[in-house]
Amino acid sequence: MSFDAPDEGWPAGAPPDPARMLADLRDLAKLTATDRGAQRVAWTDTWAQARRLLRSRLAELPVEVEIDDAGNLWARLAGASSRELVIGSHLDSVPDGGWLDGCLGVFAALEVLRALAVGPQPPISVSLVDWADEEGARFGLSLLGSSAATGRLDGDLVRTLSDADGVTAVEALAAHGVDVARMPNAAHRLAHACAYLELHIEQGPSLESRGLALGVVTGTLGAERWSVRFVGQSAHAGATPMDQRRDALASAARLALEVRRLARVHGGVGTVGSIRSDPGIPTAVAGVATATVDQRHTDPQALAAARASAERASRAIAAEEGVEVTWSRLFRIAPVAFDQGLIEASAAIVTALQGAEVRLPSGPLHDAANLASAGIPTAMLFVRSIAGLSHTPEEDTDEADLALALTALHRLARHVIGAGSDAP
Amino acid sequence: MSFDAPDEGWPAGAPPDPARMLADLRDLAKLTATDRGAQRVAWTDTWAQARRLLRSRLAELPVEVEIDDAGNLWARLAGASSRELVIGSHLDSVPDGGWLDGCLGVFAALEVLRALAVGPQPPISVSLVDWADEEGARFGLSLLGSSAATGRLDGDLVRTLSDADGVTAVEALAAHGVDVARMPNAAHRLAHACAYLELHIEQGPSLESRGLALGVVTGTLGAERWSVRFVGQSAHAGATPMDQRRDALASAARLALEVRRLARVHGGVGTVGSIRSDPGIPTAVAGVATATVDQRHTDPQALAAARASAERASRAIAAEEGVEVTWSRLFRIAPVAFDQGLIEASAAIVTALQGAEVRLPSGPLHDAANLASAGIPTAMLFVRSIAGLSHTPEEDTDEADLALALTALHRLARHVIGAGSDAP
Repeated sequence: MSFDAPDEGWPAGAPPDPARMLADLRDLAKLTATDRGAQRVAWTDTWAQARRLLRSRLAELPVEVEIDDAGNLWARLAGASSRELVIGSHLDSVPDGGWLDGCLGVFAALEVLRALAVGPQPPISVSLVDWADEEGARFGLSLLGSSAATGRLDGDLVRTLSDADGVTAVEALAAHGVDVARMPNAAHRLAHACAYLELHIEQGPSLESRGLALGVVTGTLGAERWSVRFVGQSAHAGATPMDQRRDALASAARLALEVRRLARVHGGVGTVGSIRSDPGIPTAVAGVATATVDQRHTDPQALAAARASAERASRAIAAEEGVEVTWSRLFRIAPVAFDQGLIEASAAIVTALQGAEVRLPSGPLHDAANLASAGIPTAMLFVRSIAGLSHTPEEDTDEADLALALTALHRLARHVIGAGSDAP
Repeated sequence: MSFDAPDEGWPAGAPPDPARMLADLRDLAKLTATDRGAQRVAWTDTWAQARRLLRSRLAELPVEVEIDDAGNLWARLAGASSRELVIGSHLDSVPDGGWLDGCLGVFAALEVLRALAVGPQPPISVSLVDWADEEGARFGLSLLGSSAATGRLDGDLVRTLSDADGVTAVEALAAHGVDVARMPNAAHRLAHACAYLELHIEQGPSLESRGLALGVVTGTLGAERWSVRFVGQSAHAGATPMDQRRDALASAARLALEVRRLARVHGGVGTVGSIRSDPGIPTAVAGVATATVDQRHTDPQALAAARASAERASRAIAAEEGVEVTWSRLFRIAPVAFDQGLIEASAAIVTALQGAEVRLPSGPLHDAANLASAGIPTAMLFVRSIAGLSHTPEEDTDEADLALALTALHRLARHVIGAGSDAP
C-alpha cells in the first residue's frame, strides 16, 4: 500500500467537530486535574477515571471497546476488511502535567471516529487506541503498553520496578487488571494494522518560532540516557582545605556543563536534569554525586560520538578531581524514521491547511516510535505548543491550532482509508 | 583571672584513665550506633539512651546532675567557690556519624571529673556540660543548647522549624521535657562560669598532614551559609533546542564551580554540598535549582568579600542563562577568637606533651564559639582525625592520640583550677 498521493481520501461522513473535542478535553481536565495540573498518572485511580470518561463517550458510537493484555484501550469501528488503521495516543500524564499531552491525540482520534461513524462503512477498520503508560511516570519505564503490543517489552525488567512508595509495578498493574506475564499477548492486537497515526502537541518551541501551527514529524530522535555516579570523599566543609578535597558534586557540576557543550559540538541536545549528592547537606563536601545525562540526536553516529565524548570527559574530570566515576544505562533507543509515504501525504495536507509545511524530528519519545520500529507505516502530526511548554500545568495550545490539527488528522485518516480501499 | 602561666596547676587527685574513657566511648557506640554509624541525633530516643549511659556513669561520682531549661545536661563537682570551670561538648551526632564527634569531649570531661573527685576539694567548682543539639541535624539549627545558655537563641525561629517527617521542633523538644518558651532561662546556668574548655576531634586533615596528635584552636572561622535558588523554565529535554533553554541546573553548576574558585582567590573555604533541581528528572531541563553555598574564613573582611563575589558571580551567571536568582540566608556567624591566655597555656601543655605545638582555627563550628562570644574565657583542644574524616562511620582517631588528648585536657583543667585558686 502506498500513502503518498495527496488525494481527497475516503469521503467524510461528517466534518469533525473541534468544539466537541475541546469540550471533551475540558471535561477531562475538570475530572482529573488539580490546582497543580493534570494527575492522570498511569495505574492510578485518576487515570482510571480518565478512561471511564473516554469509555462513556465511546459508548455513544458503534464501536467495539476492549482492553488488551497490556492494558491498552481499543475502540474498533469495523470496516469491510479486518485490516485496520490505528489512530491514538495516551491518556496518562506526568504528575502536575498539562491538559493536552497525550489526551489530545486520544480525543482527536475519538472525534475522527465520530465523523467516520456517520458515513459509509469504510473499506478497512479504524481503531482508536489509548496506550497504557506512555509516560512511565510512576515506574520509570515509558512506552509500556505500546512496547508490549510491539513485542518489545522486557517483562523481567517490569518485575523489578517499584514506585516511590515501594508499591511494585506487578501489584499496581494487577490492580488495573494487567498480569505482567500475559502482557506480550497484546501483540495480537496489531496483527492487522496497516498504518498508525498520532496527533500530539510539539512540547517544544520549534513550530512557534517558525510561526506555524502544524508540523510533520519525520521520526524520533535516538536517545542515550545514563546515570553517572561520582564517588569522592565526604568531608567537613569547614575543616577540609580546598586542596585536600575529593568533591563529587563539583565533578558532577563540571560534567553537566560539558554535556551541554558537547551538544553544541555534535548537534542534537544534551541535558543534565538532576544532580543528587550525598550527604547533600550545606556543611559537607559531597562524597557521592549522581547526575542524569540525557543525549539525543537524529543521527546514530553523532549520538554515539556525543555519548562517547561525555564519558571520556567524565573520566578526565574524575582523574583531575581524584574521584571515581561509573556510568549506568537508564535507557537507550535508536533514532526511528517514520513512513516516507505518510510523511509526504501529511506534508501535502498540512501545506493545504496552513500554506506552508515544516518537517521536524521529535525530541520526545512517542508510542509511534514503537509502532514504526515494528514495521507499521507510521506518521505523526505536531501542533504548536505555546512557549514550547509541556509536562507543566502551563502547557497550552491555541484553540484555533487545535481545530486545525483535528482537521489535518481527519484528512490524513481519510487519505489512509482511501488508499486502503484501493489496496488488494 | 589570667590563664597564661604554664604551671603545674591544681594537684592531680588521680591520673585520668584513658582506658576507662575508651571503654565508655565503646559502650556508647554499642548502645547507639548501627551498621551505618552513630545515630545519636538530638531529640531522639537514641540520644536519650546516650544520655542515660552518661548519667549512669555520673551516678558513681559526687556530682549534682541537672538538665537546664534548654535541655543541656550539667554535672557539678562542688568546689570551695561557686565560680566554676565548665568542661564539655555534645553527645548528639549527625545521622550515620562517627563514634568520637562530640562524645569524646563529654567523656573526656567525665574522666577529668573522676580524676578530680578523688583529690582535695578544688577552689572553684567544676562542671561537665553536655550541650543539647550541637549538630542541628534534625531541625537545621546547630548549637541550639549553647545558644540558649548564652542568650543567643531566636525562639521565634525555633517555633518555625520541623523535621523531614513534618514533626515540629516544638513537639520534639517537648517530648524531651524542653519548653521553647523557657529555653532562655538556661542562661542562668552560666552565671558563675569563669572558663570553658572543650576537647574535640579535628574533623579535618591539618594535624595529620603535620604529623601531630594535638592542636590548639585559636577560634572558629566565620561562616556565611546561603540557599541560592535559580528559576529558569522547565522544558522537555528532547524537544527544547539548546539555544532556547533557561536551564536552572546548569546555572547552579556554574555557581558551584565559581564558589570553589573564589575560595582559592580569597582564601578560606567554599563549598556547594547540594544542588536540588525541579522537576529533577532525566528528561527535563530543570526549571528550578537550589544550591547551598557555605563559605568560611578567619578574617571577617575576606569572608564578606568572598560572599559578595559569589553573589555577584551568581547574578552574572543568571543574566547569561536567562534565569532569576535569589539568595536566602541559612546561617551566619562572625569569626570568633578564643582566650589568648588559655591559648598560651594550652600551647605550653601541648608542647610539653608532644614536643611541638600547632595553632589552627576551627572550620567546623562548636559550642565553644557561643561561649567565647558570650565573654567567657574559652579554649579548645583538637586531636588528630585519621584521614580528616568526620560525620561518617569511618571517623576514627588512634587510641594513643586519644590518651594524649585526655592528658592535655586534664592538665589544662588543673591549670585553670590552679589559677582560680589564686584569684580573689
